Amino acid sequence: MKKAIVLVSGGLDSLITVAIAKQENDEIYFLHINYGQRTEQKELDSFREIVNYYKPIDAKIVNIDYIKDFGGNSLTDIKVDVPINNHIQDLDNSHQVPNTYVPFRNGNMIGIATAWAEVINASKIYIGAVEVDGSGYPDCKKSFFEDLEQAINSGTKDNFNIQICTPIIDMSKSQALQIGQKLGVPFELSWSCYQNNDLACGKCDSCYLRIKAFKEARLVDPIPYKVPINWIN
Amino acid sequence: MKKAIVLVSGGLDSLITVAIAKQENDEIYFLHINYGQRTEQKELDSFREIVNYYKPIDAKIVNIDYIKDFGGNSLTDIKVDVPINNHIQDLDNSHQVPNTYVPFRNGNMIGIATAWAEVINASKIYIGAVEVDGSGYPDCKKSFFEDLEQAINSGTKDNFNIQICTPIIDMSKSQALQIGQKLGVPFELSWSCYQNNDLACGKCDSCYLRIKAFKEARLVDPIPYKVPINWIN
Repeated sequence: MKKAIVLVSGGLDSLITVAIAKQENDEIYFLHINYGQRTEQKELDSFREIVNYYKPIDAKIVNIDYIKDFGGNSLTDIKVDVPINNHIQDLDNSHQVPNTYVPFRNGNMIGIATAWAEVINASKIYIGAVEVDGSGYPDCKKSFFEDLEQAINSGTKDNFNIQICTPIIDMSKSQALQIGQKLGVPFELSWSCYQNNDLACGKCDSCYLRIKAFKEARLVDPIPYKVPINWIN
Repeated sequence: MKKAIVLVSGGLDSLITVAIAKQENDEIYFLHINYGQRTEQKELDSFREIVNYYKPIDAKIVNIDYIKDFGGNSLTDIKVDVPINNHIQDLDNSHQVPNTYVPFRNGNMIGIATAWAEVINASKIYIGAVEVDGSGYPDCKKSFFEDLEQAINSGTKDNFNIQICTPIIDMSKSQALQIGQKLGVPFELSWSCYQNNDLACGKCDSCYLRIKAFKEARLVDPIPYKVPINWIN
């Protein structure tokens, strides 16, 4: 019996990861983390729709308010502006970490998933991190997940063994979209925008990466945007 | 400027670790985690007294209720009894993990400390784990902390470097007490008992280890117990 926990933010990458995990396991469990991000409600709505669609054995929502309390990033700290000038391209050269980076978020989320996994005896934790085509976050690197997997297996019971699965980490976002398309992923259920409005802004770094990926994959994003998007390259 | 975060449960080991961290750093920050344990209130009272005594730059209390929600251990799950027959001695041979083990608790706590450390740019995280003379918890092993330190340094910003400090991990509890005695640690501020009563029960595994350590160190524990303790060996 293959049992897996999937970290589901409600974004595109985690939604595609859900579809992959569903195919590779007998039982899937979903974990959604609220960390006081601006878009908490939008992500939660997406998460609930994804739960309804994929019907996992169990789905948990965990609040970790301390991340917001620590501050220092634009996703949880209203004093810091979310970047809207598509800095992502500039970052390729500068190797800077954008201010949307939430300190050690993935480390914390996988730690929580591990605590649950050890209780239900799951053997895999899936996370939809993207390294190459991502935002340059240090906690999205493949080497980090490998090191963390080793640490977890040192620090849990001997008869418990976990594998951290990052099925789309080496893919471009457009490649991940194509995999998702083949697996029949309902893209309309996901939310990517960093702003907390009814419609995706189409301008923030996250919208920028999403729109770019759909264009590269020669697909049309089914979600509505606040601004007109030209889907023909 | 040496800046360190200390995980302070309110127990004896973390209290001694505070005294060591204070001596080794210019600025200390305290982090206390509530995870829905039976003795949450007692530990919190001890934490506040330790804060008043050592006066850190900042002290944070973080609630992680999900640990209780996941269940499966006697410290957070009222359906599971806390062991009171001093099984610890038996465990030396059986290598079993006692039911007071809270899945990946230390991994979660250090993950939280890391998120804070990255914001305030602290370079050390102290935890009062004890391996040799401890309770046999897998997340108290030296090898685990070494692996986790490596994972954290992979998964955080390049200009951030953390060291996980476990100053008493190789000590017997009585050796740690002797160090604490030299550093003038106010032992009366700490709480160890697994029961949530006014007086320490003197019977649970945690009381058993504490009493044994004071006897071996030829010191008298200043806290009152519910049952008479013979301090002379």
